[in-house]
Amino acid sequence: MGRIICAGLGPGDPDLLSVRSDRTIRQARHVAYFRKKGRSGQARRIVEGMLAEGVTEYAMEYPVTTELPFDSPEYNAILAAFYDDWADRLAALSENHEVVVLCEGDPLFYGSFMHLYTRLQDRAEVQIIPGIPGMTGCWNAAGLPVTWGDDVLTVLMGTLPEADLAALMRQSDAIVVMKTGRNLPKVRRALATAGRLDDAWLVERGTMPDQRILRLAEADLDASPYFATVLVHGRGRRPMAETEAAE
Amino acid sequence: MGRIICAGLGPGDPDLLSVRSDRTIRQARHVAYFRKKGRSGQARRIVEGMLAEGVTEYAMEYPVTTELPFDSPEYNAILAAFYDDWADRLAALSENHEVVVLCEGDPLFYGSFMHLYTRLQDRAEVQIIPGIPGMTGCWNAAGLPVTWGDDVLTVLMGTLPEADLAALMRQSDAIVVMKTGRNLPKVRRALATAGRLDDAWLVERGTMPDQRILRLAEADLDASPYFATVLVHGRGRRPMAETEAAE
Repeated sequence: MGRIICAGLGPGDPDLLSVRSDRTIRQARHVAYFRKKGRSGQARRIVEGMLAEGVTEYAMEYPVTTELPFDSPEYNAILAAFYDDWADRLAALSENHEVVVLCEGDPLFYGSFMHLYTRLQDRAEVQIIPGIPGMTGCWNAAGLPVTWGDDVLTVLMGTLPEADLAALMRQSDAIVVMKTGRNLPKVRRALATAGRLDDAWLVERGTMPDQRILRLAEADLDASPYFATVLVHGRGRRPMAETEAAE
Repeated sequence: MGRIICAGLGPGDPDLLSVRSDRTIRQARHVAYFRKKGRSGQARRIVEGMLAEGVTEYAMEYPVTTELPFDSPEYNAILAAFYDDWADRLAALSENHEVVVLCEGDPLFYGSFMHLYTRLQDRAEVQIIPGIPGMTGCWNAAGLPVTWGDDVLTVLMGTLPEADLAALMRQSDAIVVMKTGRNLPKVRRALATAGRLDDAWLVERGTMPDQRILRLAEADLDASPYFATVLVHGRGRRPMAETEAAE
């Protein structure tokens, strides 16, 4: 009897995999991962040099849909069929084998694996190994406490409407914005509206060898990679802000 | 020349330490950790069986202050002196040794280490190893995606005023509430006001052998440990909710 194990990979540095993910991946005989067609894929890159000899790899390549907008029903249907297909294949494979699915960051935090996970319910035994979320890698790259005391942290997607972003940013102490890319000018305007632009950092490729951290206000918004993360640190909301009393 | 390394421990299961934290802790000759007086301490418990023979341990015991309220200036002053003292000791120790400070979860996410970290600036070389945050362990214990699509996630402390909690909960898709304990009845009322009580879970000791997950609406609020976490899963905010289109 086989099973499917989704191994969280953490933010990018292979040394930040959990002990359990590391062991599971090194022992795996069947390894699957998402990637864009024609790319090596970030998940596969993280485990480079870790896979056992003779492992069978399953590159789950997203369908190419450059002609369709991301939010169109046609695109959703194509993507759903893609997940259906891979859920079928992994379920069949798991009848006789243990299959390890690689997933960047933490699988249950905005992870693509959930599209397979929901489809595999009652069809296969599925285990998930948590990982350090990408945003945690980013605030560690910045080297400052992201939250302390009673800070409120809000995690936002750059795809949200500008007014919603600004309103939510205004009410939060610490802010993480993911899915930036083309949305970065909008995210910057929303932060300015919320009075937090001067506190904002842009973290590109956090924890990876080529990571880069710069003030968002000074960043060239056209040159930023899609997976850059915007970060605003909390300031230590009372009543726990004891350092203020001390210093 | 020495240095100070703060090793994130993750949510509680030793198998969920990062490869780097695991290696660093096993090689350490000097290990420090916070704990309450008279307790073994959760951080120390997680690394049980991992420390090298002959290691020197430094239990940084919080001053006992049962007679003072947590938010009083007197309490803050005592706590600040405690952190000052340990920052001095670790800085002195790091002149000749490498010292590993254990920190539950991720050190920069509501971690006590930041009180030492700010005091050690320019006095010692400090490195931080990220960890899986406690809340990530909790949503993995629940085994459901906490966020997907364009969900907004808000992390709140149970110590906040009830009206603030309810207002912030109402605007969020996914919700994490930490520091619950005595605040649990208030947290429950706020969730009810925000219309999210029926979606809320109480996770006690997530990823640990005695973890427990139950619906908050059905929980006995008096019997819950302080470090229980309340969790509300997001529902997949559009435009990315492709599974709805497919099913």
